[in-house]
Amino acid sequence: MPEPRIAVIGATGAVGAVTLQLLRERGHGQVRAFASARSAGRQLDGGLVVEEATPEALGAGDIDLAFFSVGTGASRELVPAAVRGGAVAVDKSSAYRLQDGIPLVVPEVNGDRAFEHDGIVANPNCCTIPLTMTLKPLHDAAGLARVRVSTYQSVSGAGLQRMEELRGQPPAEGNLGMDWAFDGEEFEEESKLRAETRKVLELPDLPFSATCVRVPVLVGHAEAVWVETEEQLSADDARRLLGQAPGVRLEDFPTPRDATGIDDVLVGRIRRDPTVANGLVLFVVADNLRKGAALNAIQIAELILERRAVAA
Amino acid sequence: MPEPRIAVIGATGAVGAVTLQLLRERGHGQVRAFASARSAGRQLDGGLVVEEATPEALGAGDIDLAFFSVGTGASRELVPAAVRGGAVAVDKSSAYRLQDGIPLVVPEVNGDRAFEHDGIVANPNCCTIPLTMTLKPLHDAAGLARVRVSTYQSVSGAGLQRMEELRGQPPAEGNLGMDWAFDGEEFEEESKLRAETRKVLELPDLPFSATCVRVPVLVGHAEAVWVETEEQLSADDARRLLGQAPGVRLEDFPTPRDATGIDDVLVGRIRRDPTVANGLVLFVVADNLRKGAALNAIQIAELILERRAVAA
Repeated sequence: MPEPRIAVIGATGAVGAVTLQLLRERGHGQVRAFASARSAGRQLDGGLVVEEATPEALGAGDIDLAFFSVGTGASRELVPAAVRGGAVAVDKSSAYRLQDGIPLVVPEVNGDRAFEHDGIVANPNCCTIPLTMTLKPLHDAAGLARVRVSTYQSVSGAGLQRMEELRGQPPAEGNLGMDWAFDGEEFEEESKLRAETRKVLELPDLPFSATCVRVPVLVGHAEAVWVETEEQLSADDARRLLGQAPGVRLEDFPTPRDATGIDDVLVGRIRRDPTVANGLVLFVVADNLRKGAALNAIQIAELILERRAVAA
Repeated sequence: MPEPRIAVIGATGAVGAVTLQLLRERGHGQVRAFASARSAGRQLDGGLVVEEATPEALGAGDIDLAFFSVGTGASRELVPAAVRGGAVAVDKSSAYRLQDGIPLVVPEVNGDRAFEHDGIVANPNCCTIPLTMTLKPLHDAAGLARVRVSTYQSVSGAGLQRMEELRGQPPAEGNLGMDWAFDGEEFEEESKLRAETRKVLELPDLPFSATCVRVPVLVGHAEAVWVETEEQLSADDARRLLGQAPGVRLEDFPTPRDATGIDDVLVGRIRRDPTVANGLVLFVVADNLRKGAALNAIQIAELILERRAVAA
């Protein structure tokens, strides 16, 4: 099988840059970079020259795999063009995540769903990915009854501009933020996290409550998690199950700095929730640009490529 | 009644400095500043010269009210000396908080307990104070069944040195921290928060689970709170009750910066926890140096002074 022709759309953004870096590291050679007209012509580290992401360019029929890390509006316009041109699109925006018939995939959790795509596979929210990787082994062992999460999300989740703002401000001015769209009751980020967790775990009625908070940290999202299970599951058993879970590494006191630049999701502080019979408390941290975004998208694409290689 | 003679012990620390400032603002004139031998002789902003805090100096019989914001070991040594000398000691350390017979007081919650002191009144942990102020009106209305809290604690809770470290580091290096003593299962900060909340609310068996996290914010502690009540309590009712609660101000999206430098505890994000029948979710923020420490201690002392003035 010839080497796949890959396009990274949104290549000048925080996730796009990590996508390009990871593709290089993982030996993918045939890569083109796309971004908005504003960035077209710019030369990136590594020598790639940015091309303008237009429906025409992406739909020309010379792309096998397209990684989209652009806004929801741009994804809605550009993803269908790439698919019409014959590409498989892995989309990081929220445009398609909850759409019926479009798989929302975390390879370690529901990788088989990737093969059911009709041209588009959606990449979950940066908090959904590490959370579902943590919840899945617990659900398989004891059944999830109820999940509560409070997040500590780094500014890189909000893009390069916010990273620059943090870098430029006096450290004493760091504040917590709540910079998401609000529906009168909760943040869009919170309803996304609930709906996506339910879809990835295939538990459409999972009781779920989230409080999302931005922290003045550059990279790495953390989540304090309370889980109730249907059956009894001890903290030791949870630790053992998570220690064996793919893509998860146990760490006593995981922090964003520990998680930055690595592939694994770090899980620690695993203990009993003494307020209920079958409760556990955990702390989950992941590099939101890697496993929370770019890496997960690449792993989805690699699953699809492997399957094609086997079939060929 | 003559003006009370006040001593601030730990006057060169983060809480001590705020204590001195608040005493000035509130018109208390007769104030002396004490600290360890290292700081003795130093002149503070405002002109006070720091005296060495020794058992002899504090026990000399010329202090009516002593505010201690020193380490637990120093409190154990110095507080009894001040009390023997005739002072009422308001102690911010954890030395006496859980000791039987020593009141642990949040004036808005259990102010009457202050009058039961035998020389010492303990000031709760900086997270306990805003949390109990939020929980008390909910408990009175509907009975607390279960509380879960994750904290976002600023570095000023760990003292001046940590504030200087944060000020001196590049903002891009901000990380979450877990810098408390660990007992193998949880942080001392977490067990303190549980035990103190139970004592202040006089609910010795309250089911309670906490995850404590340090965030790279200078001042202001936040808490994401899940509350279950015995009786049904709507989010609207909770909002109404908290809007009337003393020392509490409703704010849609409270952040540490909003809370810095003010007296009120800010409570927001009040909504239903959809995972249970009688559940609420809230977000609580307070200035940990003011209401979380110095202000609460001064309010305790003022309660005692007022009572004396009435009795005199």
